Amino acid sequence: MKNTFGYSIAVTLFGESHGESIGAVIDGLAPGLEVNREYIAHMLTLRRPEGKISTPRKEKDEFRIVSGVINDRTTGTPITILIPNENVKSGDYSQIKTTARPSHADYTAECKYHGWQDSRGGGHFSGRITAALVAAGAVCRYALEQKGIRIGTHIKRCAGVSDREFGDLPADIASVNARTFAVLDEAQGEAMREAILAAASEGDSVGGILETVITGMPAGVGEPWFDTVESMLSHLMLASPAVKGIEFGAGFAIADMRGSMANDPMRMENGQVVTVTNNNGGINGGITNGMPILFRTVIKPTPTIFKPQDTIDFKTRTDAVLEPKGRHDPAIIHRARVVQDAAAAIVLCDALAMRYGTDWLGENK
Amino acid sequence: MKNTFGYSIAVTLFGESHGESIGAVIDGLAPGLEVNREYIAHMLTLRRPEGKISTPRKEKDEFRIVSGVINDRTTGTPITILIPNENVKSGDYSQIKTTARPSHADYTAECKYHGWQDSRGGGHFSGRITAALVAAGAVCRYALEQKGIRIGTHIKRCAGVSDREFGDLPADIASVNARTFAVLDEAQGEAMREAILAAASEGDSVGGILETVITGMPAGVGEPWFDTVESMLSHLMLASPAVKGIEFGAGFAIADMRGSMANDPMRMENGQVVTVTNNNGGINGGITNGMPILFRTVIKPTPTIFKPQDTIDFKTRTDAVLEPKGRHDPAIIHRARVVQDAAAAIVLCDALAMRYGTDWLGENK
Amino acid sequence: MKNTFGYSIAVTLFGESHGESIGAVIDGLAPGLEVNREYIAHMLTLRRPEGKISTPRKEKDEFRIVSGVINDRTTGTPITILIPNENVKSGDYSQIKTTARPSHADYTAECKYHGWQDSRGGGHFSGRITAALVAAGAVCRYALEQKGIRIGTHIKRCAGVSDREFGDLPADIASVNARTFAVLDEAQGEAMREAILAAASEGDSVGGILETVITGMPAGVGEPWFDTVESMLSHLMLASPAVKGIEFGAGFAIADMRGSMANDPMRMENGQVVTVTNNNGGINGGITNGMPILFRTVIKPTPTIFKPQDTIDFKTRTDAVLEPKGRHDPAIIHRARVVQDAAAAIVLCDALAMRYGTDWLGENK
Amino acid sequence: MKNTFGYSIAVTLFGESHGESIGAVIDGLAPGLEVNREYIAHMLTLRRPEGKISTPRKEKDEFRIVSGVINDRTTGTPITILIPNENVKSGDYSQIKTTARPSHADYTAECKYHGWQDSRGGGHFSGRITAALVAAGAVCRYALEQKGIRIGTHIKRCAGVSDREFGDLPADIASVNARTFAVLDEAQGEAMREAILAAASEGDSVGGILETVITGMPAGVGEPWFDTVESMLSHLMLASPAVKGIEFGAGFAIADMRGSMANDPMRMENGQVVTVTNNNGGINGGITNGMPILFRTVIKPTPTIFKPQDTIDFKTRTDAVLEPKGRHDPAIIHRARVVQDAAAAIVLCDALAMRYGTDWLGENK
Repeated sequence: MKNTFGYSIAVTLFGESHGESIGAVIDGLAPGLEVNREYIAHMLTLRRPEGKISTPRKEKDEFRIVSGVINDRTTGTPITILIPNENVKSGDYSQIKTTARPSHADYTAECKYHGWQDSRGGGHFSGRITAALVAAGAVCRYALEQKGIRIGTHIKRCAGVSDREFGDLPADIASVNARTFAVLDEAQGEAMREAILAAASEGDSVGGILETVITGMPAGVGEPWFDTVESMLSHLMLASPAVKGIEFGAGFAIADMRGSMANDPMRMENGQVVTVTNNNGGINGGITNGMPILFRTVIKPTPTIFKPQDTIDFKTRTDAVLEPKGRHDPAIIHRARVVQDAAAAIVLCDALAMRYGTDWLGENK
Repeated sequence: MKNTFGYSIAVTLFGESHGESIGAVIDGLAPGLEVNREYIAHMLTLRRPEGKISTPRKEKDEFRIVSGVINDRTTGTPITILIPNENVKSGDYSQIKTTARPSHADYTAECKYHGWQDSRGGGHFSGRITAALVAAGAVCRYALEQKGIRIGTHIKRCAGVSDREFGDLPADIASVNARTFAVLDEAQGEAMREAILAAASEGDSVGGILETVITGMPAGVGEPWFDTVESMLSHLMLASPAVKGIEFGAGFAIADMRGSMANDPMRMENGQVVTVTNNNGGINGGITNGMPILFRTVIKPTPTIFKPQDTIDFKTRTDAVLEPKGRHDPAIIHRARVVQDAAAAIVLCDALAMRYGTDWLGENK
Repeated sequence: MKNTFGYSIAVTLFGESHGESIGAVIDGLAPGLEVNREYIAHMLTLRRPEGKISTPRKEKDEFRIVSGVINDRTTGTPITILIPNENVKSGDYSQIKTTARPSHADYTAECKYHGWQDSRGGGHFSGRITAALVAAGAVCRYALEQKGIRIGTHIKRCAGVSDREFGDLPADIASVNARTFAVLDEAQGEAMREAILAAASEGDSVGGILETVITGMPAGVGEPWFDTVESMLSHLMLASPAVKGIEFGAGFAIADMRGSMANDPMRMENGQVVTVTNNNGGINGGITNGMPILFRTVIKPTPTIFKPQDTIDFKTRTDAVLEPKGRHDPAIIHRARVVQDAAAAIVLCDALAMRYGTDWLGENK
Repeated sequence: MKNTFGYSIAVTLFGESHGESIGAVIDGLAPGLEVNREYIAHMLTLRRPEGKISTPRKEKDEFRIVSGVINDRTTGTPITILIPNENVKSGDYSQIKTTARPSHADYTAECKYHGWQDSRGGGHFSGRITAALVAAGAVCRYALEQKGIRIGTHIKRCAGVSDREFGDLPADIASVNARTFAVLDEAQGEAMREAILAAASEGDSVGGILETVITGMPAGVGEPWFDTVESMLSHLMLASPAVKGIEFGAGFAIADMRGSMANDPMRMENGQVVTVTNNNGGINGGITNGMPILFRTVIKPTPTIFKPQDTIDFKTRTDAVLEPKGRHDPAIIHRARVVQDAAAAIVLCDALAMRYGTDWLGENK
């Protein structure tokens, strides 16, 4: 269904980088949920560029909720969030109209839209659209928190520097959610930022790996075929710009384990079923097992760099060289992490509503 | 939509490991497509256990097409493929009814189905169900081949042994599709099989990494949000048993690249737009760019092993120890590869039918 | 989604009139539901031709449940019902291959499937396929009955003869469900059958109107846009062969009412909100109000008649005259009624599962 | 999917009568389509109240397209249309918050949303939302017109007065589309308006029947099960407020025909297959046959009347009497007709895009 995702709770995204507004419609959320505007604003702040390691483009990301909410409570009908684009300089992008930026969507957009696409700033393909996803996800995420379901993402690796592993989950989740640059070990975060600046000073960009953990999910949510929790999360995560892979639990490293090491032994603990290890990332057979859901996504380096690049002009169909100007990010991973949180929140809300009905997340009067 | 996947072409799976039959319905395929029964049978053969490195359970996988095909041509209406279960020994599984096998779906099935699930041989969660997926995918895959779209998967890594990289794609795809144990370098394949047997001799199991390449896809297929080609492929791949991750192009390794290295330079070649490298795996902005689609999936070690394992009894909710008996695979990666091919074929057929209409894949009289 | 309908509970239909088997997959039904084979068989009996007023083609409609059920209880995974076609005489249909039967789907099938369609006996367009729908619907309907939700359909009008109105609903529903020819007033039923035979004796066919009532539905089920209960019921009802219209409550007659007459006054009765009249058929704003759901569907006369008819040959694209042979029904309305019941049951189960979650219909152990 | 409808082309509706804005997102339309703002404005004009026979509430219906369109051409990505609510007097509706208006959605909204619904002016259930549907449908309808597909709806019957039948379709369609009060026979239209005023003078309201014809649809569009053209049209038509039934071709009158009369004889005419009559409304087996699609919908009398009505207070759960104040329509049928056109346009665009691919409706550069 393209720009709409979800069955019971469906999110529709719209907008272009340099159009009038971007936005999202969230349909199906239970009535009576608190919509916390400060919380949404905070999540948008986490996505916004900061300091020297990001694009100089600044957006206030002031959002308006134009439907579905009264007195900061959901009505149960579609919630529409609009975010106007304020700080638009179309002129910067004049060169790229037919000269494809390598590893951007310029050429594929041309193949699909035959020259009618909005190419200003990446148009509908721009990372800017993720602001709408973050806003929509923030509404879902706040609802999950009221049910004790918490999401946290840290920058596990960036520009060759690694953060420490997740340890005490409640504390670590609280910690990363309070930080603009989401690392568990601040010294490593400082090293990452330095490495980003080093790349930027050479006109280059860097990527990294995000790690997300979700606690509090009840066991028994998800479907065996084809709508496993892993499938639904992967579907939405891989739709975000720059994400090129996802792995759950031990992930690709499980390839080199034997079954006796990879299997998660189980035991009773305080009357609850738990696993001793969590190599399966909280999901077996596509269904939650009550342990934390754990996954990592890989973020490619920002494709816009300040070096000449070989490319093609898709109008003249000739070789060309691109030397981009404008404002761009040497890294987006620190901004992408709140996008992953938002996407995860949407998937979980939908899965929970399918499982327990449309009222489950809400508060009945 | 659960056990149904796809918009224009939808596949529905059904069946349990020890039920009467498993099967699949493929809806929406163009009329007039040749349905090649030998081709389907060959694909099922590739999925079947072989020799010492697989379970002793042998199924003939004789399939019947009970609707949607006349004279080996699709009619355009739903194609139903049935595969009877022949070689069923339910007795072997008596112990596991309430003792959860670690890292299997036993406990999560209990949480979802409250004791009503078919637990014989994993029931609906069994890898056995992938035979139906392979059969359905084979119909799609054969149709793609008539359009010059080819899929090949090799075992990139297994039990600590690596295969060589893809090189000459047409030759390599032909080569892996002809082999039961799909490696590009037969010597490495032999080393893998030895490593599998070594693990088996210790009652243990191994996993690995599959790498899939798809050639011949037209540029301009896929959607920016949320139904990117990466999203749709990930959705279906992650629904297969034992798959815990997926990565496209350079995958997780792109995290340590700089943009100047990760970006794929473009140039004209024989009038076609090509990229010099393929770190994006043939997809930009979620849309095919005409280069080969390249992805890898990680397969966890078979969770059934022949060693005592700590677990719980989910009925008595007490700690327990599992010492499984029965017939199982020390590795499934060599069988899983044709499942990935099938899943990919289904996704691509759906994406192509959405893009070019319901007749595109077919032959008009 | 074509041959699949529903979100939380999805039904997939397959098969052709003269193929090997027809069947249905029901996905998403709660685990632990009793599957009553006698009940299913009874529903199939109600759909089968009877006596002189139906086609001489007799099918035993012996069904097999090949997945999703153990010990007559749903497992929670897809339920597949197969009904083999036994009594097939393809020879009867040789003439119609390119001579379009007026008001059948022969010509439209040709336009869509370009000659690849299975035209034997109407193929996938045949009323025969409704046997699979009835079987699938019977599983759903039995589940609804355990929750106190009852469905009954009578032949409101046939061949110019009208049945009496619904009166005492529990008694009337029980009465029509016990009858092969579903009328409330048996004398009127006798008159209908005579009128059918009169038309048959002239080589002609008749149509009629079915009226369906559903009691016991909780208030608050359905969606305002676009998945109203009326929309979902209409979607499935209008997909059945020969149905050309649907109306809810007072239906088309409401066009000539004023608001003061059409509005349903409300009052409290035994602590329940009820309406004094039911001109809205139990649905306001697309959502159930707790009153009986009431709708009527119109069934066109069987298009196969034993008179010469002007038509075209769609291969030669010339005028032609059709004089059909074979076995056909002078009326199908008495058989169609159980199809409407089945379709309604599927829609309601899906709407209830969306509203209250996947376990609501089931029985937890 | 609730507030989203369609597969290849999907429309999402949002907003409440007295909220900030209503609107729609149209996703999947081909790139390069002209978006004619005057055409959209004209369609909105046709939906707006006029003169004495409508509510005194006047809205300018000024719409803004905030995404998906550049230089009045579609980009191929989601088109979002916003219509601000300007003329809001919430005070008028204070009484109805817990006193259910009979035959409105007040009580069912309460059952579904537990008191959190926006009840001002009907909230999300208000006919006001149809302005967004009309705007979205106008974009689709204009695209269809460029392909020679035309839609026209007339008021077939209102307040006991009947319009003449459709005759010369091109002329009649042009005629009704030019009129605010869509009748073919102006004298009958005058009689209808008088009858509406007569009802209004007694504080009452009236309903009627709309008849829609669609010319130019290619043969072979639609699906046999379950997404027939009739099913898809019914789904969307029955989701519009006040619509209680739909019938195709001869509709309910076919119940009293014999097959020899109801069947549409076929013949060749100027190299085209045509039917002599059109009792099937242009659809056989759920698929278009190239003849005009013809259907009628019944519109119930506006439930708000100026007479005391027995009802209940759903908070106190006691009997109550309602004497509404505010601004309302004694008839809405003359406004509803352009809603039906819009809904039909959306369904047809989706069906055509599914059949012929996403580019079919557009213009490639």
